[in-house]
Amino acid sequence: MPTFKITIAYDGTDFSGWQAQPNQRTVQEVFEHAWQEITGEQLRVRASSRTDSGVHARGQVVGVKSETSIPADKIRCGLNAKLPDDVVVLSVELANDDFHATHQATGKRYRYRIHNDYRRPVFDRQFVWHMPKPLDIEAMHRTGQALVGKHDFASFESAGSERETSVRTIFDLEVSRGPQQDNHLDPSPEIWIEIEGDGFLYNMVRAIAGSLVAVGLGRKPESWLSETLIAADRRIAGQTAPAQGLILLKVDYPVSHS
Amino acid sequence: MPTFKITIAYDGTDFSGWQAQPNQRTVQEVFEHAWQEITGEQLRVRASSRTDSGVHARGQVVGVKSETSIPADKIRCGLNAKLPDDVVVLSVELANDDFHATHQATGKRYRYRIHNDYRRPVFDRQFVWHMPKPLDIEAMHRTGQALVGKHDFASFESAGSERETSVRTIFDLEVSRGPQQDNHLDPSPEIWIEIEGDGFLYNMVRAIAGSLVAVGLGRKPESWLSETLIAADRRIAGQTAPAQGLILLKVDYPVSHS
Repeated sequence: MPTFKITIAYDGTDFSGWQAQPNQRTVQEVFEHAWQEITGEQLRVRASSRTDSGVHARGQVVGVKSETSIPADKIRCGLNAKLPDDVVVLSVELANDDFHATHQATGKRYRYRIHNDYRRPVFDRQFVWHMPKPLDIEAMHRTGQALVGKHDFASFESAGSERETSVRTIFDLEVSRGPQQDNHLDPSPEIWIEIEGDGFLYNMVRAIAGSLVAVGLGRKPESWLSETLIAADRRIAGQTAPAQGLILLKVDYPVSHS
Repeated sequence: MPTFKITIAYDGTDFSGWQAQPNQRTVQEVFEHAWQEITGEQLRVRASSRTDSGVHARGQVVGVKSETSIPADKIRCGLNAKLPDDVVVLSVELANDDFHATHQATGKRYRYRIHNDYRRPVFDRQFVWHMPKPLDIEAMHRTGQALVGKHDFASFESAGSERETSVRTIFDLEVSRGPQQDNHLDPSPEIWIEIEGDGFLYNMVRAIAGSLVAVGLGRKPESWLSETLIAADRRIAGQTAPAQGLILLKVDYPVSHS
């Protein structure tokens, strides 16, 4: 009975997030439907992250315990033929029998994209947060370093989460100008916030992004972010940045499971 | 009576091209409608290029002769507030009285984007041509150099065009790997064909892109492109590449008009 580790990408725009819910179009539901079409199996699958409505993924990992005898590469082709055009399977690998996509993840990396230009974005309008006023990238990066390490992130968590502890470890936080894509235009209008950690509380990346923007706009001093972290009170942090700017880039697992 | 040179960008996906047509959603129609909303003027405007249905633009130039007294920068803000989210005004400049966006263009640059990976694209699926089989970028670039210069491009023109001559000059043709956008993944799956010239026949860039792909796939030898050019017969060239991969990058005018 093989266990598969399946990496998928999706445009979250038209999905009510990952998790299956009645009368909603979700990534889990379309994935399970495609799985049933190619194998005949009606299964419940697990993902590394239950991404919210409107959040995108480029390296979401899905774990499937199946009785199929279809080989991994044929599964990839079959799923891609059945899935709608806003979801794609990037790879299908055989995993250890005890592989669990949710519980065994050791690290995740997210990117939050901000379109920082006085003019609206057109081509990436469903993948960025439009922020017309100039942001101070260096100040955002500097202040963000206060979050790196093991901390209680209760200040950056939305209410109603289920979890035993709000302590998490951030391995890396980088705020940088988006890549220059073209020789014919000005510097990229995008600012990227990338955060990697061992796990994230509900809405944590978006709360951090919103707080970094408050500093980048000069509405809050650079010292405010570490004070907010110490306070461990959600009411203090900045606004939760909109879902559409967020993308799950990758998920790491122990070597023995990947 | 001011004349404006207005640079706009649009996602062509949901437009039946630039040119106004009855019962079609076109960029010209939404632009003229927005103009009327902010100035009260019901005008016919001209663009540098009548882009086809599904073709995108990042530097389309629109010429407007108006009697408005609204200053240029206010026009930009006003249009952007009225235009739908798949069109944006990038700049509004005062031009010479005799400025004509269509007739005075001296050069145009287009990009054709190919997603060259066995897996479907997700995020840019409306901006690329998906080509699952590997393309030989170097062969495409080498053979494309045969088109640079002043030639009769009748072989790369779709039927039904109105024009006096099919002679055009290509200034530059580059085939290259798309930019690396991310440190965490493999090389870019995109191949970009960029072509700059003094003007283009109907569907010429897409016919060239389709022909370069035939060479890149090894279906045609590298010598075939220059033979096709010399034949001056459209039936010989490759297929016309799909509209959605094409984007008008910029339009040049004589310095006195810009």
